[in-house]
Formats: sequence, structure tokens, C-alpha cells
Amino acid sequence: MALIVQKYGGTSVGTPERIQAVAEKIIQYRDQGNRVVVVVSAMSGETDRLLSLATTLCERPMPRELDVLLATGEQTTIALLSMALQERGCAARSYTGAQVHILTDGAHNKARILDIDAHRVSSDLAAGRVVVVAGFQGVDENGNITTLGRGGSDTTAVALAAALKADECQIFTDVDGVYTTDPRVEPDARRLERITFEEMLEMASLGSKVLQIRAVEFAGKYNVPLRVLSSFEQGEGTLITYEDEGMEKALISGIAFNRDEAKLTVLGVPDQPGVAHRILGPIANANIEVDMIIQNIAPDGKTTDFTFTVHRNDYQRGMEILQQTAEQMGASQVSGDARIVKISLVGVGMRSHAGIASTMFETLAKESINIRMISTSEIKVSVVVDEKYLELGVRALHQAFQLDQAATA
Amino acid sequence: MALIVQKYGGTSVGTPERIQAVAEKIIQYRDQGNRVVVVVSAMSGETDRLLSLATTLCERPMPRELDVLLATGEQTTIALLSMALQERGCAARSYTGAQVHILTDGAHNKARILDIDAHRVSSDLAAGRVVVVAGFQGVDENGNITTLGRGGSDTTAVALAAALKADECQIFTDVDGVYTTDPRVEPDARRLERITFEEMLEMASLGSKVLQIRAVEFAGKYNVPLRVLSSFEQGEGTLITYEDEGMEKALISGIAFNRDEAKLTVLGVPDQPGVAHRILGPIANANIEVDMIIQNIAPDGKTTDFTFTVHRNDYQRGMEILQQTAEQMGASQVSGDARIVKISLVGVGMRSHAGIASTMFETLAKESINIRMISTSEIKVSVVVDEKYLELGVRALHQAFQLDQAATA
Repeated sequence: MALIVQKYGGTSVGTPERIQAVAEKIIQYRDQGNRVVVVVSAMSGETDRLLSLATTLCERPMPRELDVLLATGEQTTIALLSMALQERGCAARSYTGAQVHILTDGAHNKARILDIDAHRVSSDLAAGRVVVVAGFQGVDENGNITTLGRGGSDTTAVALAAALKADECQIFTDVDGVYTTDPRVEPDARRLERITFEEMLEMASLGSKVLQIRAVEFAGKYNVPLRVLSSFEQGEGTLITYEDEGMEKALISGIAFNRDEAKLTVLGVPDQPGVAHRILGPIANANIEVDMIIQNIAPDGKTTDFTFTVHRNDYQRGMEILQQTAEQMGASQVSGDARIVKISLVGVGMRSHAGIASTMFETLAKESINIRMISTSEIKVSVVVDEKYLELGVRALHQAFQLDQAATA
Repeated sequence: MALIVQKYGGTSVGTPERIQAVAEKIIQYRDQGNRVVVVVSAMSGETDRLLSLATTLCERPMPRELDVLLATGEQTTIALLSMALQERGCAARSYTGAQVHILTDGAHNKARILDIDAHRVSSDLAAGRVVVVAGFQGVDENGNITTLGRGGSDTTAVALAAALKADECQIFTDVDGVYTTDPRVEPDARRLERITFEEMLEMASLGSKVLQIRAVEFAGKYNVPLRVLSSFEQGEGTLITYEDEGMEKALISGIAFNRDEAKLTVLGVPDQPGVAHRILGPIANANIEVDMIIQNIAPDGKTTDFTFTVHRNDYQRGMEILQQTAEQMGASQVSGDARIVKISLVGVGMRSHAGIASTMFETLAKESINIRMISTSEIKVSVVVDEKYLELGVRALHQAFQLDQAATA
């Protein structure tokens, strides 16, 4: 008898009718002989409704009280789903984050899970009940309600699966799995049967927003097999595990991209130790996150050019800060571009195969796409190109690496 | 520095604007040098919204899950009110029933408070914070969320006031106090400055629905001075305390009435021990609550007539049961009337003054109002009359006992 933790997001439980459909799906899994723990989000729209109530009252709601408010969203869903299960003759019991002691740190609105007391859940499972747990929320050591930040329900599900040593953690969403790339950009994009944790992390952080990064990290750390499935359609979805012998032997698993990038460059900085720190320190102090960083020595050998990318929303502020820094450092010029995108090839197969990067550059060159920046890691090659080339670039690469066809081992 | 517990009901916090008005009112009290604990209900309409969500999913929601659902209503209000206070520079902190350990029994939907751990509230007060507590809800010894039933927020407020040994518990409602009778029936009805717990209990149970009976009992038991005030207007409201020297020396404090009564009579029952039990036992087994009970010996001395009143909703069912019982007992006849009302004079002054009842009967006789039943207690005289005489009777009595004028000591 397998133990499964399932997570249903806000869209999946967005109306009473959908809650009923979810209840029926859960009962199917239970009737197949599984013990089932369910983690749910707030009904879609509910979090926004609560937030707008809060902002009517104050511009910046106190984080502690915002958590008290937002936590009601999932609490409503767990009660309703438990009722729907019981109405169908399926014994069920709901728990808030606090009730199952999802202990977090005290960082309101973005808390991290420290520990889960799975005792109560286990004894309900042993009694034959389906256990319904509120996602996204926990409690700190002083009993204050905390939330994990948007999308934190995925993390709750994985953490519960780890604590319960579940056989699988299933994340039900509005897509039926992880694709080789976004099907809205490349209609030939193909659903992957399997993908590794590392690849999934690169895919997620690069803009394929199927799963919360933290949830994937957590699943990888505790080796919880994670499956992404559709709430609305039947199907096997995509299983995220560690690499194993039975896995597809693809060089590249997928193509991720990110439209929200902006590029900032400072030219002609006198080259001396500590340049990177002097440039990026003020950026970090302004709470701007930096993604790619590239530094070149200029042709004269005495100065250096320094380029980095940030989220597009931070572009203006980043430029202002960089201009000040450049003046202080005696740099010759500052430039920037907010109309760039990042395209990345991701695949564990890269580790053992050379030539991936050169095929990528060749493919883009054939389409006359100018590469503005390049960054590589062990299982990823990223390029920055002009915004207008995004679709063209993704499609060309998808074809070049034959991602529309399943790899033969 | 006084310690006040204030309770604001659903109408008082029904919109963000009203929550802001409540926040300003609280700050006024605090600025007058009081320490303030606030108990709030769900925003008006919210409980009904949640209930209708539940009944979409199942006819009879499981009581445990219903409590999980309904408890979100007050949780939303405490967060919003705390935000509104903080936005105005007033340090505040919210707590759910579980967080301040409002320990109840496990009777979901109608739990009773067993204990409150006031420690946390006290330390917040000492730190200069306003403490905002969710009314209506608690937690049982197993950590399950419970609710006290509709109107239970009053009880939460009184229980907190008792646990904190507060100087006063203030219940803010949509009326500005307790009146000598319903002003919609008698325009000359007058707000009472003071009333005793016992009188208030009789007034409340007889249909003046200003306060929850349980809250008044609780306040009386723990001697918590209770004040009923308007959320929307300035004023002193009505203070409910034990009788003391300074109190108005009125014979009668008020006139309560109840429109929801129905009368059932069984005639010619052979008079023998256990008659009352044989008649009322089946009624009680059907969960029908009985209010007044009267038994007379019939003129023949061998049979007895037995009359009792029930809620009008229970009239049909009560008649059916009584008919069966009457047959089994060999009674001669069963009759009933669902169009009766009860009018009651209430006042601790009655204890030491004879003649109240006879003035009452004389007043009604002058208006040709036929009295169908009479029942008396130490501080109350109740009569049952035909429904059509309600307004006439109440007004005549209000005038006869000069309730429009404050009593002179």
C-alpha cells in the first residue's frame, strides 16, 4: 500500500464544483489502495481578495497580520474539501499548518519550514482517513501563524512527503507535465516522462513556472519522487527523480527562457582587485537580485568591462545606482538594455557530451541571431539575445536538438 | 489605568470603513489611559457566505469541518482590525482562539469555554499593545478548532474579561443600550442606565435579544461588569451589574415579550403521580424545548388539565406527539393554539413589593385583554395572551408602571 502526498493548487479548487471533482480524484487514488495525504492552496482569487481587503486598510500591511489574514484562504479550502470527501463516504480530517506543527522560522510572508510533526497525520492515516492539510502556512516557535510566500503549498507538500517518507509527492496543476519548452512558443514541444531534480531546478529558475524552486530543492534534498500532473485531465504527467539507468538518454531535456531580464554594463573600469564587489555591493544593498555576471578585460589590458543582468522591474533603479558607482570608480561609460531575453538549454546529458554549446551557437548564427552574453554551468548553457528573437531562437533550438522526439537509449 | 475588554459584532466590522471606525474608537479608549483587549466577530454576511459554500458541497456538513471553516471569519477580522490599528500608529497584535488557548469542550458548533490562558494577552498589554482576539472560537484539548455557536463572541469577551480580571466588559452592538421594552412597539421606551444580571437574563431569555444569555450568565457568575453600547453613536449605554445601593429603585425594569410561543393543552387526564413526566417525556425525547408549564385539577377532582408552551416551530410536531400520549393516558381531549404571545414584567424590585401582579392583571383587564396563562418567578410575572393583543398590552403596561420615566430613589 503506497503512501501518496497530493497537492492541488488554487485553480484546481477554485469553485465548489472543482472541489467536488478533486474529491472524486482523491477517492480514485484511495480506492486503488493508496493512503492519501492532500495539501491544498486557497481557492483561486481568494488570496487576491484578502490582499485587497488588507490594502484598503493600510498601504503596507504588517507582515504578521498579513499572515493571519492569508492563512484563512487555505483553511477554508481544507474544510470544504474534507466535507466533500465525507459527503462521498470517504473519512477525512482537515488540519491547518499550526495543527500539524509545520514549524517554520519567524520570517513572516516568506517563512521556511524547519520541522514537521507527522505523528498526527500518521495516526489518521492508520485509522483509514484521508488527511487534508492547509498548504502555504505554518507556525513559528512562539505560535505565530506564518506563510511560506506565494506558491509555498508545493513546499508544504514536499516537506510532508519527506516527513512521512511518502512513496511519491504528486503536484496537480493546470498543465499536464513538464515540457521540453513552452508549447505556446513551440507547438511541437513534448511532455517529458522524466526529468532529474537538477534539470528541473534549472528549468524552474529559468522561467518554466510549473513548480516552486524551493519545493524542487526540498524534494531533491530528501529524495522525494515528485510528479507533476494535470488536475483536469488523465495522464502520467512528468516524474522528477534522480538520474537512473532507466532514464531517457537525452543530451538536452528542455529549453527554458526568461522574458524578464535586463542587462547593465559599465565600461572602462580601471582593473584592480575588488572591482566586482565595488560594483555589485551597492546593487545588493538595494535588494536587487543579480542573475548573470560577465567580466572581460578590455583591449587596452588596463581597464575592464563588467556586465550583469537583473529583473526588468529593477532596471531603472539599477541604472541609477550603477551610474553613481561608475563615477566614483572613474569608469568611462555606463550602458544598459531592458529589451533582452535569456534562452537556456538544460540537460544532464551535457555533462558527458561536448559540442552542445557549439551546436547552439551555430543554430542561432544560422538564424542571424546575435548573442549578447553567454553563461554556462555543468548542465546548462544560457545565452542573452534581443527580445525580438525569443520565439525564433527557441524554435530553432528545439528543432536542432530534436526535442520533439523522445530520445532513444 | 483600567483594563477594558471590548466586543464588536459583525455589523460593527462589516466593511473596511467600519473596521477603520472601530479602530478609531479603540484608540480613543486607549488614549484615555485604558488598556484594551478587543474581541471581534466575523464581518457581517461572512458566516452566511461560508455556510452557503459548505451547503453547496454537502447537506449536513460535518461539525468538526464546519468549525474549521467558520473560524476563518473571525480570523479575517482580527487581522484586518490589527492592521487598521497599526496603520494609525497603535501597536496591536491579533490572536485566534487557539492562539490564546481558549480551551473548550469538544462539542463542535456549540462548544463551551473551559479555560483561558490569559498569560499571552497580559504580556502584550504590559508591552503597551492593543490585543485583538477572535471571538466565537476556541480549541479543544486535542487541538481541534471549535466554535461556540452564533453570538458566541459575547461569551468570548466576557470569559476573557473574567480571566484578565478586567474592570469592564463592553459589548458594542447596533443598539445603544437595554430598553424598558422594544421601542418599535412602544415609542416611549427608555434606555436603562443600569440593570441587574438577573433582570438582564430574564429580559434576554424573554426575547430582548441584545446579548447572548450565556454571556450574561458568565458575567454574573464571575462578577464582570458588562456594558452594552452602540458602535455607531456616542453614549453611556446600559451597565449590567449586581444590585447595589446606587441603583435605580424601580419596581419594574422592563417589559419583555416573545412572539414565538405556542400553547398545547391536554384536558381530563386521570390525576395520578407521574402525569407531568408521562406527558412531557415524549416531548423532551423529540428535542422540543418547553417553556411555561401549568397544571390544574379539574372541577371533578379526579382528572387534571395540563398546559405547556413551546416554540411556534415545534407546534405541529408537539401536537402530534401529545395526541398519541393523550390516547395512551385516556385523556379526554387535546387542544392547542399557535397564535399566542408571552408578555413579561421583569424587575428585582418585585421581590420586596407586593401588588405588581395585581396591577398587571388590572391593567390588562381594563384593555379587555384576556389572560390565557400566568407564570411567576421571583423577579418576573409572565402572562400569555392572544397574539393580536401584544402591542396594546405592552404599551398599556409600559404606561401603567411609568417606565418612560426614570425612577426616583
